[in-house]
Amino acid sequence: MLKTLEQRNFPIASLKLLASKRSAGKKVTFKGKEYTIEEATPHAFEGVHIALFSAGGAISKELAPEAAKRGAIVVDNTSAFRMDPDTPLVVPEVNEHELNNHKGIIANPNCSTIQMVVALEPIRKKYGLSKVIVSTYQAVSGAGAKAINEMNEQTRSILDGETFTPEVLPVSGDEKHYQIAFNAVPQIDKFQDNGYTFEEMKMINETKKIMGMQHLEVAATCVRLPVETGHSESVYIEIDKENITVDEMKSILSEAPGVTLQDDPSEQLYPMPANCVGKDDVFVGRIRKDLDRSNGFHLWVVSDNLIKGAALNSVQIAESLVNLNLLK
Amino acid sequence: MLKTLEQRNFPIASLKLLASKRSAGKKVTFKGKEYTIEEATPHAFEGVHIALFSAGGAISKELAPEAAKRGAIVVDNTSAFRMDPDTPLVVPEVNEHELNNHKGIIANPNCSTIQMVVALEPIRKKYGLSKVIVSTYQAVSGAGAKAINEMNEQTRSILDGETFTPEVLPVSGDEKHYQIAFNAVPQIDKFQDNGYTFEEMKMINETKKIMGMQHLEVAATCVRLPVETGHSESVYIEIDKENITVDEMKSILSEAPGVTLQDDPSEQLYPMPANCVGKDDVFVGRIRKDLDRSNGFHLWVVSDNLIKGAALNSVQIAESLVNLNLLK
Repeated sequence: MLKTLEQRNFPIASLKLLASKRSAGKKVTFKGKEYTIEEATPHAFEGVHIALFSAGGAISKELAPEAAKRGAIVVDNTSAFRMDPDTPLVVPEVNEHELNNHKGIIANPNCSTIQMVVALEPIRKKYGLSKVIVSTYQAVSGAGAKAINEMNEQTRSILDGETFTPEVLPVSGDEKHYQIAFNAVPQIDKFQDNGYTFEEMKMINETKKIMGMQHLEVAATCVRLPVETGHSESVYIEIDKENITVDEMKSILSEAPGVTLQDDPSEQLYPMPANCVGKDDVFVGRIRKDLDRSNGFHLWVVSDNLIKGAALNSVQIAESLVNLNLLK
Repeated sequence: MLKTLEQRNFPIASLKLLASKRSAGKKVTFKGKEYTIEEATPHAFEGVHIALFSAGGAISKELAPEAAKRGAIVVDNTSAFRMDPDTPLVVPEVNEHELNNHKGIIANPNCSTIQMVVALEPIRKKYGLSKVIVSTYQAVSGAGAKAINEMNEQTRSILDGETFTPEVLPVSGDEKHYQIAFNAVPQIDKFQDNGYTFEEMKMINETKKIMGMQHLEVAATCVRLPVETGHSESVYIEIDKENITVDEMKSILSEAPGVTLQDDPSEQLYPMPANCVGKDDVFVGRIRKDLDRSNGFHLWVVSDNLIKGAALNSVQIAESLVNLNLLK
């Protein structure tokens, strides 16, 4: 988050770094200046204009209302308020205007949702959108540093013919743990009663909310892969117009904000997670017309889940708040 | 193939092992007896009842008709004859009866197609089937031993912080080569003019042919993963009946030939490639009802691409030829 604020030269008058009591007192450098981390208490938010939250849902539930009460606008990177009807859920390329309706808290969507709606919005705007079916290929960095370590250590164990015991993935708080190295695990987050995982339901519900389309048909299957960073998505869509060509679709996406088109089969050009790491954009390729339905298309959407999927989108929301003159 | 013939105790009166001139003379042990490999010439097929071919499309195109001319029934594991209207394309659990129409050559389908149709046929039989959208998660062993070596060496290089040069994947005969370790590559086989890869078109065309449903809507996106063995597939289907429950769907699949149901979210039970290696069955789980269409379902289908996807299905075809008394 700090790296993104620094890179984008966000207009900061003063910066406060808040964390748990345990981390208070530690020093962090930002733009060459040293800052001391303070404890995140309700009072710490006095005088703050924008508070970027990324410390887990429980902390957000406790402290985001306190920060908002004191006049800060909270941009919350957790799932705590995403489906709250009073909280705008914002991807600036899609629904920046929703920021006008904020009540002190703005939610940053789930990483896998963000990159998909950035790719879908320009299509919806031009051709309408009625159905989305997505299968994801998600990186372990979405599950945190422990998951990355587990993948790397497991991978080495397998190459060396040694045994290992999975302890983190697929879900650190769940009962069973499975091998992620050289495997594909069709579980991200816990299961709901309907057989879908929370990750899948987040993609379904958040997509409808961000795009403002409660009647959009959305289905998701979310799968974790042995990839460190970069989520990929195989997306099938149905639009409202018939007989749109692949070239027209490519043309729309090549001009869309936040999107880089990478699509040339003759050059074997298509997005891949290994190539997206450290980049801001959402990469779209493998655009094909469905062979049966003339309003159906297939896309392959890749983005760095730690950048556009998290820090960048939060900072972009903060930028929009400034640009729209929404700070008190 | 030999291992499968041995494991299943296939009724062999005499065995001939044929290969290129280069391999002729080498010794191979089968059921404790030593065999000398002979050169595969047209004459070598004299007196052979069943010829299992797995030496690439060009060899099959040259020698399969020669073997058939001499009275052998060829079971061909390449793509050479799959879409030939005179050649049955057979997965015994699905369309064993097509073997009655053979003209000397029977084609074994593509690995990713076989496991999908084994899962779909029991559903089609009971509820009908109108639409299939599949996104694959395919293992590198489908691309051969060189691809496996490349993945393992690349993986070690990345863990050790060393450089490497991709030389095999995604397609050894194509121009560009990309990293497979810790990556997801949305290209398997070369591209066709319509933007689909040959692998994707194989899944589409072979599924229609095997299931005998030219009007079935099928779409595929095929992706290579850093998994050594075991293809996974995220499959969306629409059936002809409304209001079928997940439990009814599970019940059908639990009794289906060649299928093992692994589906219990409360126990985090679902199929994964790491668990399917060395096993005969097609594993199905993550069965969910689509939240928008009452005739829509989502499945996760996993199988060992070297067993049911290749050797086992060929040997099962040979077994069916024996059981149906189709040998001359």
